[in-house]
Amino acid sequence: MTLTKNGRHIFNEVPHGYPIPGRTTIYDGSPSIDLDNVPLNGGFLFKTLDLAVDPYLRSMMDQVSNSHVTPFRLGEPLVNYGIGLVLRSEYSEAQPGDHVYGLIPFQEYSVLKDFENQIERMRVLKNDVGLPWSVYLGAAGMPGQTSYMAWKAYAKAKSGDVAFITSGAGTVGSLVIQLAKRDGMKVISCASSEEKRQYLSSLGADVTYNYRTTSAREILEKEGPIDVYWDNVGGETLEAALDNASTGARFLESGMMSGYNEQHLPIRNLFKLIGMQITMQGFLVWSLVDQYRDEFYREFVPLLASGDIKYREDITHGLETVGEVLLDVQRGKNFGKGIIHLADG
Amino acid sequence: MTLTKNGRHIFNEVPHGYPIPGRTTIYDGSPSIDLDNVPLNGGFLFKTLDLAVDPYLRSMMDQVSNSHVTPFRLGEPLVNYGIGLVLRSEYSEAQPGDHVYGLIPFQEYSVLKDFENQIERMRVLKNDVGLPWSVYLGAAGMPGQTSYMAWKAYAKAKSGDVAFITSGAGTVGSLVIQLAKRDGMKVISCASSEEKRQYLSSLGADVTYNYRTTSAREILEKEGPIDVYWDNVGGETLEAALDNASTGARFLESGMMSGYNEQHLPIRNLFKLIGMQITMQGFLVWSLVDQYRDEFYREFVPLLASGDIKYREDITHGLETVGEVLLDVQRGKNFGKGIIHLADG
Repeated sequence: MTLTKNGRHIFNEVPHGYPIPGRTTIYDGSPSIDLDNVPLNGGFLFKTLDLAVDPYLRSMMDQVSNSHVTPFRLGEPLVNYGIGLVLRSEYSEAQPGDHVYGLIPFQEYSVLKDFENQIERMRVLKNDVGLPWSVYLGAAGMPGQTSYMAWKAYAKAKSGDVAFITSGAGTVGSLVIQLAKRDGMKVISCASSEEKRQYLSSLGADVTYNYRTTSAREILEKEGPIDVYWDNVGGETLEAALDNASTGARFLESGMMSGYNEQHLPIRNLFKLIGMQITMQGFLVWSLVDQYRDEFYREFVPLLASGDIKYREDITHGLETVGEVLLDVQRGKNFGKGIIHLADG
Repeated sequence: MTLTKNGRHIFNEVPHGYPIPGRTTIYDGSPSIDLDNVPLNGGFLFKTLDLAVDPYLRSMMDQVSNSHVTPFRLGEPLVNYGIGLVLRSEYSEAQPGDHVYGLIPFQEYSVLKDFENQIERMRVLKNDVGLPWSVYLGAAGMPGQTSYMAWKAYAKAKSGDVAFITSGAGTVGSLVIQLAKRDGMKVISCASSEEKRQYLSSLGADVTYNYRTTSAREILEKEGPIDVYWDNVGGETLEAALDNASTGARFLESGMMSGYNEQHLPIRNLFKLIGMQITMQGFLVWSLVDQYRDEFYREFVPLLASGDIKYREDITHGLETVGEVLLDVQRGKNFGKGIIHLADG
């Protein structure tokens, strides 16, 4: 019996405000695994290659369930989308050498067997287009699906319309900017630094601003009214959007980042919905995946491989770095999709 | 030349809070009109029979325009839906003796000529079903259209779903209760007195409460979660609805009465939209009329005439009473559609 180290990054304490590296979550290098003999019970053993760090993970630290989000369990590894390389298998749909994608624990090796209890079952990735595997966690993964599927389902994009897209330098926002431009819209977007602001322009955004130095209200009063609002932030930005919406505007409520680590700011002008006949659509990508999955892989992923749609990754190495990356993603310090790289394969 | 008194009720002062009878609006009995010789300029002269007093009139007192609501003008008569009897006409589509319906000034006689500048052109009412003319201001008029058209457009009604309908004793709410019951839903509704609460039950509502003595939150925690929310009030009731919504719930934002006369309460839990994937639809009936008008007169109005769908009217007599009725409607003191009756015909 040969034991191999099986390091993991566990959820240690419910945070108040921002997650604290080394306290909210901690790295645990003590576990080990017998790769040759661990029982599979009809499932498969895989090695974790890459793990995604997404903004929404903060909400899974609060111990509140809803229909789609299961809170992290104290003392257990974090869970999020990742890429695995199958080492051994008793499951007919995954063979050794296959790359699998799905919700996996933050540890070096895992045995997966409980397929039905997963939001999205592990899927074998084909990657005909030859993208780096990690891209299937970002632009070709859940964030990319969020952008593409919700845009198709809810934006009612019309050439000449004005779109306002927050968190434009994030994976979701940067893809939405490009989808809006491909639909012939005027795009207003914002980010947290001058460097990121320039990145928004390079993606085609027509009006860009640094939200740490310029207010949304000031920009929208000049460049609005807006027909589509992609909301990643909530709070005062959402209020400014409500005050500068055109009749029949579509508000795609993707996230309210401003309230994840602090109290959600109350919205004082929601009554604007009525007079301007706004549709405000809250959504989670999981409800759209069944309807749009095929179209996503057929229409969108090839555009990433060809370079017609651009993406960025911000890759760090090793499970020890997870705590810092979690915080960076909440603070908007990362630039590109947050990826923890564990192993090549 | 014979002059006839042409009394009117004018907008006199922008209110802060509730409208004050005799100050916000005042009756002016001084004008007169020469019914035989007043020039028609291609239009027609009509005698006002009935005028509607609706909750939304309060928003037209604030001097804020949007795409569909034009504020009242100081010193000019109020304007709202009314029924007129045509006395003389140079307009081919309206003959003497016809009953017309549309937005008309609060005065005894008017000449209408500027058809194109009206939100909805004056229409000649046929009334094949023999309803009292005043009903075309309520259940068979704009409030009825609001209920029927928005319910058809946005509720996605499903048998067994739970609907929560505020202002259930108002014209709009009372009709929505009956539409929801016809679609096989469980209906929760509220009103401002015990007498009105019993009226909700008589319309078929399954769960009713007096919102002056019972909180929405308490009721919804017990009887929810809700699939459809018909919002006439906003504020804390909307917050309670957000906290007790089912996944994919539809919120029909018809009004936010609680903020019309006082500050709108900020909404503290709007982020619930995302996790519960709620669609919040702000609407004004004017945008739905073109699509649903024929269906409304064909499918819905006959149900009023046959008694299959019930309605109530609260009729007062004479333009002098307008100020009091405006206030009663804002305070929820009226019981049934607020109608000012001027003349039979």
